[in-house]
Amino acid sequence: MSTRKEFLKNASLLGAGAMFIPKTLFSEPTDKSVITREPTGWSDGTRLIISISMQFEAGGEPEFGFDSPFPANLKTGFPDLPAKTWFTYGYKEGISRMLDLWDKHNIKVTSHVIGGAAQKSPDLTREIAKRGHEISGHGLYWTPEYAMSYEEEKKFIKDSVDLIKNITGQTTTGYNCNWLRRSKNTIKILQELGFTYHIDDLSRDEPFLIPVEGKKFVVVPYTLRCNDILLLEGRNFSSTQFLETLKLEFDQLYKEGATKKRMMSFSAHDRISGTPAQVNVMDQFLKYALQHEGVKVMRKDDIAKLTMNDKTSLIDPDYH
Amino acid sequence: MSTRKEFLKNASLLGAGAMFIPKTLFSEPTDKSVITREPTGWSDGTRLIISISMQFEAGGEPEFGFDSPFPANLKTGFPDLPAKTWFTYGYKEGISRMLDLWDKHNIKVTSHVIGGAAQKSPDLTREIAKRGHEISGHGLYWTPEYAMSYEEEKKFIKDSVDLIKNITGQTTTGYNCNWLRRSKNTIKILQELGFTYHIDDLSRDEPFLIPVEGKKFVVVPYTLRCNDILLLEGRNFSSTQFLETLKLEFDQLYKEGATKKRMMSFSAHDRISGTPAQVNVMDQFLKYALQHEGVKVMRKDDIAKLTMNDKTSLIDPDYH
Amino acid sequence: MSTRKEFLKNASLLGAGAMFIPKTLFSEPTDKSVITREPTGWSDGTRLIISISMQFEAGGEPEFGFDSPFPANLKTGFPDLPAKTWFTYGYKEGISRMLDLWDKHNIKVTSHVIGGAAQKSPDLTREIAKRGHEISGHGLYWTPEYAMSYEEEKKFIKDSVDLIKNITGQTTTGYNCNWLRRSKNTIKILQELGFTYHIDDLSRDEPFLIPVEGKKFVVVPYTLRCNDILLLEGRNFSSTQFLETLKLEFDQLYKEGATKKRMMSFSAHDRISGTPAQVNVMDQFLKYALQHEGVKVMRKDDIAKLTMNDKTSLIDPDYH
Amino acid sequence: MSTRKEFLKNASLLGAGAMFIPKTLFSEPTDKSVITREPTGWSDGTRLIISISMQFEAGGEPEFGFDSPFPANLKTGFPDLPAKTWFTYGYKEGISRMLDLWDKHNIKVTSHVIGGAAQKSPDLTREIAKRGHEISGHGLYWTPEYAMSYEEEKKFIKDSVDLIKNITGQTTTGYNCNWLRRSKNTIKILQELGFTYHIDDLSRDEPFLIPVEGKKFVVVPYTLRCNDILLLEGRNFSSTQFLETLKLEFDQLYKEGATKKRMMSFSAHDRISGTPAQVNVMDQFLKYALQHEGVKVMRKDDIAKLTMNDKTSLIDPDYH
Repeated sequence: MSTRKEFLKNASLLGAGAMFIPKTLFSEPTDKSVITREPTGWSDGTRLIISISMQFEAGGEPEFGFDSPFPANLKTGFPDLPAKTWFTYGYKEGISRMLDLWDKHNIKVTSHVIGGAAQKSPDLTREIAKRGHEISGHGLYWTPEYAMSYEEEKKFIKDSVDLIKNITGQTTTGYNCNWLRRSKNTIKILQELGFTYHIDDLSRDEPFLIPVEGKKFVVVPYTLRCNDILLLEGRNFSSTQFLETLKLEFDQLYKEGATKKRMMSFSAHDRISGTPAQVNVMDQFLKYALQHEGVKVMRKDDIAKLTMNDKTSLIDPDYH
Repeated sequence: MSTRKEFLKNASLLGAGAMFIPKTLFSEPTDKSVITREPTGWSDGTRLIISISMQFEAGGEPEFGFDSPFPANLKTGFPDLPAKTWFTYGYKEGISRMLDLWDKHNIKVTSHVIGGAAQKSPDLTREIAKRGHEISGHGLYWTPEYAMSYEEEKKFIKDSVDLIKNITGQTTTGYNCNWLRRSKNTIKILQELGFTYHIDDLSRDEPFLIPVEGKKFVVVPYTLRCNDILLLEGRNFSSTQFLETLKLEFDQLYKEGATKKRMMSFSAHDRISGTPAQVNVMDQFLKYALQHEGVKVMRKDDIAKLTMNDKTSLIDPDYH
Repeated sequence: MSTRKEFLKNASLLGAGAMFIPKTLFSEPTDKSVITREPTGWSDGTRLIISISMQFEAGGEPEFGFDSPFPANLKTGFPDLPAKTWFTYGYKEGISRMLDLWDKHNIKVTSHVIGGAAQKSPDLTREIAKRGHEISGHGLYWTPEYAMSYEEEKKFIKDSVDLIKNITGQTTTGYNCNWLRRSKNTIKILQELGFTYHIDDLSRDEPFLIPVEGKKFVVVPYTLRCNDILLLEGRNFSSTQFLETLKLEFDQLYKEGATKKRMMSFSAHDRISGTPAQVNVMDQFLKYALQHEGVKVMRKDDIAKLTMNDKTSLIDPDYH
Repeated sequence: MSTRKEFLKNASLLGAGAMFIPKTLFSEPTDKSVITREPTGWSDGTRLIISISMQFEAGGEPEFGFDSPFPANLKTGFPDLPAKTWFTYGYKEGISRMLDLWDKHNIKVTSHVIGGAAQKSPDLTREIAKRGHEISGHGLYWTPEYAMSYEEEKKFIKDSVDLIKNITGQTTTGYNCNWLRRSKNTIKILQELGFTYHIDDLSRDEPFLIPVEGKKFVVVPYTLRCNDILLLEGRNFSSTQFLETLKLEFDQLYKEGATKKRMMSFSAHDRISGTPAQVNVMDQFLKYALQHEGVKVMRKDDIAKLTMNDKTSLIDPDYH
């Protein structure tokens, strides 16, 4: 199988719903896919998918050792009381303000919710789902999992699934590790637990399929370039710079959407983008973007379904 | 008491001037307050309150170990003479320039004054009060208090009250800890000493009540997002970025002011915002904001009175 | 030889193709050249040369210890999986997007390719050459060479030449060290291996000649001021700031091009400038710049030839 | 002497040329001067003085241990060759470009020249003076002097005076310490050596007098807020941000110049502001500023003379 055409033909034989990918497809050097791809697009004619991640973490932060704008020079043993209030803003003001924004533009987002945040604010978490947004996985607590053993990590993820289900009735089918840092077992565990996608990947501007234990699994790429916490907290961007960046990204991806499947991804953390200035610029961005024809904001579980069922979806057989 | 309406009814029974909050009100899960609030607003029809903190610290800085734009690579034992002049600017140019700015727009601000700054510049401190601004507490010297014992901290705060009173004749009724870092006793001590509010809180965009020893105490939230020292010194914002941020915040909060009690808070430190560029952009911001109907710049002690007497003020019973 | 006129006369005697520079020319104090230069320009009437460096490094990064936007707090022994995907973007999306951009403006660039990147993505590397761009040296792997011995470094560079030639058929004639850091032997080794230019120099806004073992060698200066990785990753510039900077540089150098040989240099790293926002602003910059008369984007090997053959090229005899 | 009027009367008795300041004047609390000053202005009707510091340091940098944009991770014993070229740009391109800019606007600046820079580029240093700019002191080499003994420091400064005089024929009458860091003896030594002013002070927006051994000495304040190396290298400002900042500063100080003596100070270091982008924005700023009536760019030695002879100059008796 040496040409892209044959590759695509084989992919179409798999068709909708097919879960298994023959190993013979894995010998195709992915290198070629970068430069010799046929024009393609989203099957329903969508020009550009926008995926918004409203991260709900506040309330689930640990007692000590968390990141905040406060200097880390506190004496040992003393709680950082003002830093706590900085997180509190996330669920006292932030999430509500963003929920009203999504309603204003009649769009649905994906909210990766840390178990501890849902425990602290159960009604608010239920409200997110009630308004039509997806509740997706983000760990039980604010804990790195990349160094856990297989058993530890499986329990960690399963417990977060159960906790979200108990509180909201929602079953999470997608996952986002702390700081995107997965272990070598994470994706396998997710597959075993019935998840359909993970987001801890920055390699492409479109979702793609990977083989996990011979079955298809979706990668819905995340972003650092349009990530509010990385830009505002990490790089000292102003909200104006965040807006400029979103529009530059959008304009270019919208152009490319004429001949490629394109997806734009940005994030909005409770305490970072739930602020008046950030909601203001996201409002301006959405107003700008949604006036373009063929632009659709989608929940990630829907993006994952779309990708799973699309015969022309990219497959990355080398995935680790 | 399961609905918001009943909660408000009970709050109205408390009415103006009532100091005590029955414990039964504390069982209402505050979670609900975030999403099921009835439309509300300021009792006098104000659309948006703006609270300006003109922080007067220069002159009160310690001999060694203070933050400045100078590299911290000075040999031990040598005074940082140019860094000293950077602070001096705060009281030789900064405060006067800002006082003229507030006069230009006919507004009153709250100045949190460190005891040592008042000692160094008594006439200037008196002038702040003479021009109608509130002198509020900011500690005796530039010292963290979160690790003090109850007795130490009470003496520290009381000494600062006495010092300000001796120099200016003003009684401080509000307080701002060094770096917002309070101890577990701070609010209790403030209540005991007759203070009515503290500002070391970032959790909301409106002032609110908390129970302290069964009596009402006001929290007038501060800001990091519109904090000049955090943005200009900590995040390398230019004055232009500061202005953009203030306007974005204002526009969104003004919108929300149609159905919520909203307060915008920004700070202006003597040596940071007393510069020509910063006074220029604050001038532009005030010109922009004050042309909107229903916008009122208020001293924090007045905001605290307003909040204390308003039957519909938020109460946060979980406060720590 | 005390005047510039005599210096130039002697230079013209050397003429095109002459390789040797008499030692007597080296006694001219270069200090004078800075202020007493006669008006000059590019021999073909070009007003401003633009040199673009599309750096292809991703895929050649080491297993551990590389720079990325991710915090460096990973436990020892665990691979940074998300950081890997950040590099992957460089060859899955970045290079292709930039190749399409150069085609859109019908320009040719120089791509400094790390050996390991070519090994990982051989088809993509061939595609860069196929589209008319220069493949230039950037080391075998992502390794500092400034502390290598003469033999080590010569093998390191020669191996990279061979690897690029095997994969692409191209012979690299220019070189860029890791972080510009050359050893005291680098230029000598490059000369011995048949290279004609190196770029690890920030001293001028035009290419110039240096004597290496009595023969002419070209320096095509690189830039930090218009370097995408230094500005975006190192200084937290937004893409908008990058565009503003490029235009300010361009306007001033274009002005100077009336009476001097001027060259503008900027860089575009695979994973940094292959993003939608960066390609968008480079697109805007090229559209702006190329509408000016006398502006030419050139490959560095062509700039080196032009400089080698121009009798009025600056010679820096003091070079170390 | 309790009122400002009497203070001024006494100052006028001192008049032009008077060198001695009676101790009785030192008892006036300077605190009052901040808020009760009579309207004043420059004696010749100038509305705003602009002082530009073109710092010439490159070539005088030490072999090891200097600041540059390059990471400081070089192995011990190896010279940082590319970093050296970054400094070289300062005297190969930077100073000339700026000299042409000052000529374009027909203005004179003050160039604080490190002895080592003058040694490396004697013709260029002479050219600075030839074009009408002031050569002012900046130390013999790139060395901190605040920890030197009285004798060491006096020799250090005197040697720099002699070196500059030998190379340029100019006598330096002003001084700028490395990183503004003076010792407790610096000003005394400067007075003894015949200097008339120093600039290592950030406390005011106008020059002022201080008593040194009973004689008048001038402080011509420097700036960090409009300091190119602090803003561009230290705070990652873009040139656009630098221009915005200069204009904001100018507009406010120009306004204040109606009733106060006002001076605006900004710096331009050889390798930082000698770039095309920086010269471009300084060009734009000068074009903007100089179209305002009453704006004058002045050398610091002339500002010092003006201040020394003006009977209404501020006197700061507390100076340390």
